[in-house]
Amino acid sequence: MAWFRNLKQLSSTKASLRFTNPHPFFPSTAPFAFLLSHFSSQASSDAVVARPPGLGPTAEGEKPRVVVLGSGWAGCRLMKGLDTSIYDVVCVSPRNHMVFTPLLASTCVGTLEFRSVAEPIGRIQPSISREPGSYFFLANCTGVNTDEHVVQCETVTDGLNTLEPWRFKLSYDKLIIALGSQPLTFGIHGVKEHAIFLREVYHAQEIRRKLLLNLMLSDVPGISEEEKRRLLHCVVVGGGPTGVEFSGELSDFIIKDVTQRYAHVKDYIQVTLIEANEILSSFDDRLRHYATKQLTKSGVQLVRGIVKDVKPQSIILNDGSEVPYGLLVWSTGVGPSPFVNSLDVPKSPGGRIGIDEWLRVPSVEDVFAIGDCSGFLESTGKQVLPALAQVAERQGKYLAALMNKIGKEGGARAGSGKDLELGAPFVYKHLGSMATIGRYKALVDLRQSKESKGLSMAGFISWFVWRSAYLTRVISWRNRLYVAVNWATTFIFGRDISRI
Amino acid sequence: MAWFRNLKQLSSTKASLRFTNPHPFFPSTAPFAFLLSHFSSQASSDAVVARPPGLGPTAEGEKPRVVVLGSGWAGCRLMKGLDTSIYDVVCVSPRNHMVFTPLLASTCVGTLEFRSVAEPIGRIQPSISREPGSYFFLANCTGVNTDEHVVQCETVTDGLNTLEPWRFKLSYDKLIIALGSQPLTFGIHGVKEHAIFLREVYHAQEIRRKLLLNLMLSDVPGISEEEKRRLLHCVVVGGGPTGVEFSGELSDFIIKDVTQRYAHVKDYIQVTLIEANEILSSFDDRLRHYATKQLTKSGVQLVRGIVKDVKPQSIILNDGSEVPYGLLVWSTGVGPSPFVNSLDVPKSPGGRIGIDEWLRVPSVEDVFAIGDCSGFLESTGKQVLPALAQVAERQGKYLAALMNKIGKEGGARAGSGKDLELGAPFVYKHLGSMATIGRYKALVDLRQSKESKGLSMAGFISWFVWRSAYLTRVISWRNRLYVAVNWATTFIFGRDISRI
Repeated sequence: MAWFRNLKQLSSTKASLRFTNPHPFFPSTAPFAFLLSHFSSQASSDAVVARPPGLGPTAEGEKPRVVVLGSGWAGCRLMKGLDTSIYDVVCVSPRNHMVFTPLLASTCVGTLEFRSVAEPIGRIQPSISREPGSYFFLANCTGVNTDEHVVQCETVTDGLNTLEPWRFKLSYDKLIIALGSQPLTFGIHGVKEHAIFLREVYHAQEIRRKLLLNLMLSDVPGISEEEKRRLLHCVVVGGGPTGVEFSGELSDFIIKDVTQRYAHVKDYIQVTLIEANEILSSFDDRLRHYATKQLTKSGVQLVRGIVKDVKPQSIILNDGSEVPYGLLVWSTGVGPSPFVNSLDVPKSPGGRIGIDEWLRVPSVEDVFAIGDCSGFLESTGKQVLPALAQVAERQGKYLAALMNKIGKEGGARAGSGKDLELGAPFVYKHLGSMATIGRYKALVDLRQSKESKGLSMAGFISWFVWRSAYLTRVISWRNRLYVAVNWATTFIFGRDISRI
Repeated sequence: MAWFRNLKQLSSTKASLRFTNPHPFFPSTAPFAFLLSHFSSQASSDAVVARPPGLGPTAEGEKPRVVVLGSGWAGCRLMKGLDTSIYDVVCVSPRNHMVFTPLLASTCVGTLEFRSVAEPIGRIQPSISREPGSYFFLANCTGVNTDEHVVQCETVTDGLNTLEPWRFKLSYDKLIIALGSQPLTFGIHGVKEHAIFLREVYHAQEIRRKLLLNLMLSDVPGISEEEKRRLLHCVVVGGGPTGVEFSGELSDFIIKDVTQRYAHVKDYIQVTLIEANEILSSFDDRLRHYATKQLTKSGVQLVRGIVKDVKPQSIILNDGSEVPYGLLVWSTGVGPSPFVNSLDVPKSPGGRIGIDEWLRVPSVEDVFAIGDCSGFLESTGKQVLPALAQVAERQGKYLAALMNKIGKEGGARAGSGKDLELGAPFVYKHLGSMATIGRYKALVDLRQSKESKGLSMAGFISWFVWRSAYLTRVISWRNRLYVAVNWATTFIFGRDISRI
């Protein structure tokens, strides 16, 4: 246990501190004496205050504890809705913020800033940073013991000059699994090594850094025409909303900014979108054709093909053709994470954590699952819902209400909620889909399903609807302001190209 | 040469591309045919367009070329002022932006955003991204041949899936060395490995990430009181303006935000400023004492001591005392970089590149040096100027005017400026010093030198002056807007704590 090693090392440190006699900066304040007290006051307290390596079961006096795994749409919406007068909330996640994913693609080219789409969890549910019994832990969940109502966690650390990761245990009264999904690579060799996904802020940061690096490198003397074209060939694999929106943003960036700020190399840059079937398959045909026309118009090259192999500087398609690239973005849908696969519970079709109509994991007690990581069991006769932000958010909202209801009716403690009437089950009503395709154009498809009839529109108005809709969806006023300011400055001054 | 290897690899690529028969996404557009043309069009052009590995001497038809090494205050101000109808401008720097250093400390704790203090060079001098003969090269200068009027450069690459660095040569008509300085470590062991400097945006990013990481780790079960105090002990070495301003920002962050958002650990965080002599030695005594009082008031611990050794989790002071830390920021002044030391030219006291009153490097032709990397030769009878932004900026401005004058009088070409009348030499008039110390307080010292009399004030008004002054100095309107918005949102919503 690294932290224990550090602990011992510091005890000696402390000793060495106690016997020093530094020159105070101001004799009056005697700062080092203070520094000493600062570090040696634990001589006694260590024994007393020393925490158990985790949080034990909640006692009678304490509030019942809800442990939330994950900080995505589902988990954050749930935490936001939880009644903290009933529950203590403990969130376990490797990132301390929620990502407003629908706008992530815009950050890759500087239309939006990274922080404008990141929402600290402490803002979404302030009690985790204030209430004595509520916490946020920067950690990954490594195991669940449903019999003992305990989850095993491991801290996330940067290594560099800090602590090595250590494990700790959390007892829960209610456990909510909202761990999301992970990108599908279909076992294609080299994807993880050479392609960049577009799910987290650091993905967008990597894409932006690489795009700007390639733009600059391609202008340096001694580089061949061929190499220049490779560096500036941006390949997007996957024609879903993410892939299409990123391609659109990229072509916008090229049309509006690259021509201005990288005039020397503007004729060498090229965007290619590779999709095995049809782009935006969830949208209605009219919109799909409109999108295709618009993307082609703005210079995006649409290629139907299947990627067979990914090399450091080129991909191999199913027909054997080799396509060189300088930037490769991979967004071919998502699937269950290894941790979800490892969980020993009945699964839904597609291998997600099986849930019933009330989002419970029926096989075990006091455990719920929401968002991409969960899916209705076949026994419920319901379809597994798509991995969409709006599904996750709706589930989080519903479960928050359900948890509060259970709490009010005295079922909050571990094992005490069995025979409560849960009320209306969760029903999902699809509000429709939206996607921007660049050049002030977007698609809005308000049909409730692929088959059903309903309003669908495309063009500038849709783009305006798209922006307004998302602007109102952004969680905090702070970020709402920043998104608006980002959009305004991008419109007036162009995108920021400083590579920091 | 890596790029050459890649080139060969791509030629085969090209071949493999030429003989493929992909399924077009839309038969009408036949995208792959397009893709083919995109990559095979060079079959011929390769031979024709292939660039020489560098930029040769400028011919009669072309504009004379000014090569600027560095993109700091000096270099950027110079480029801004150069008459691009006379000169082609080529900038060589490892970063494509200028950092507004006086506000960098504020970005470490989220008072300002990183991009608000970064100014793309393309905005400062647009011609480098538009004019056919003007360039920005993301590279380091590795050598200068003043006889042949040539500089040797090496590209800066990220490695990761991109090219290996390669070397190229640039011929110059005029060379301006503005490479700045590097932090002094006094050969103390472990500084480079464990301490963070505060000179570049990535330094501020590292500090912010580490500060937030430590705040979160210190709240995780299984950590001892001792370790918690270590993680949250922020030690700043060096009591110059940078160290003081950072300490002030940090204490502001603790008082206003940590108490709110990290209530569990707020009592464990501590800021210590270590200085061997007096803090803010360049300011007048009254201000210095005021600063000391204010910093102590806001909880910053001032320690007089000399660091002897830096270990991963603690520093050893000259009296043998060991001080554990979680974050160590090092700002003990700057000195010449190894590259400057390696240059075979007469040096000024302090080992900087020796210059005359016109900022020329007298020993060689057509070479000038400005900013921290340069200092007046003893022969000039002038004092070496302090390493300040305002000195660098004033020199850049002066030299731009001088270069334009030389150009207008027909001395722009290499070797043709010898017997021109250069006019008035460079004279530096100190405008005074400013430093913020947190809690809406700042120091403004308008005396022209440490000895002379003059206005000096401290407190809220000074703080207001400090902010307004810098707000007006920020280069672009875009960043001026962002700095203002950042300050406003920080005031209203508090600082952003999402760790991205």
